[in-house]
Amino acid sequence: MDRPFRSDCPIASALDIVGDRWSLLVIRNLMLGARSFRQMQAAPERIATNILSDRLKRLVEAGLAVEQRAIAGSGSRGGYVLTPAGADLLPVLQEIAKWGVAHLTDRRPIPEAFLATTPALLLNSADKPLS
Amino acid sequence: MDRPFRSDCPIASALDIVGDRWSLLVIRNLMLGARSFRQMQAAPERIATNILSDRLKRLVEAGLAVEQRAIAGSGSRGGYVLTPAGADLLPVLQEIAKWGVAHLTDRRPIPEAFLATTPALLLNSADKPLS
Repeated sequence: MDRPFRSDCPIASALDIVGDRWSLLVIRNLMLGARSFRQMQAAPERIATNILSDRLKRLVEAGLAVEQRAIAGSGSRGGYVLTPAGADLLPVLQEIAKWGVAHLTDRRPIPEAFLATTPALLLNSADKPLS
Repeated sequence: MDRPFRSDCPIASALDIVGDRWSLLVIRNLMLGARSFRQMQAAPERIATNILSDRLKRLVEAGLAVEQRAIAGSGSRGGYVLTPAGADLLPVLQEIAKWGVAHLTDRRPIPEAFLATTPALLLNSADKPLS
């Protein structure tokens, strides 16, 4: 992480890393089991390839995601997965989801599995996508 | 709210409203008792006047904050305050703060009062700024 932080406030600093229109959506996709560009671009927000590429690069630089290579015959599919630090953003996304459901009309309900998931479970299930 | 949403996902939709570098910091300032431009610009991130003005306008349009006029002799100071929908973002900010403290080195600790606060208490104390 070589980007300057705006202040020493933990909220401001976290937002310096993921406080934009797309980063937390890329993390949401990774939490739901997407690993490849194709899987992440299947999400309904239709993220542009260059934005997805940029945000994944930033998440890797910040230590929130890693790229794994597919290993032939091993069952390892490769693609991007969250690190423990990235998976620890789950409570943030859960609270954002609860707020959206409570205050924005006509949003779709949150899957029960998402609200019940813990960061540890998320990592354990990295090879078994939920969607 | 007349802006289009990217999808019907509650996370994406919430981020359509507050998913930028500054909006949640303005909300943090309001939660900590800042009401005037001067008070909000005293925060260490040194938000520019035009950005602050734009984000407050957006928060008012989205129903997350309201502007109150000062009433001479009434003790009412005027300035911006959160609505109940805005105050309900507290758990989001608390989880972001916890993540920042856990994963970013050298961030300052979160004030106990902030983590213990509930959205209801926040509204009750709107006339008694914490900072």
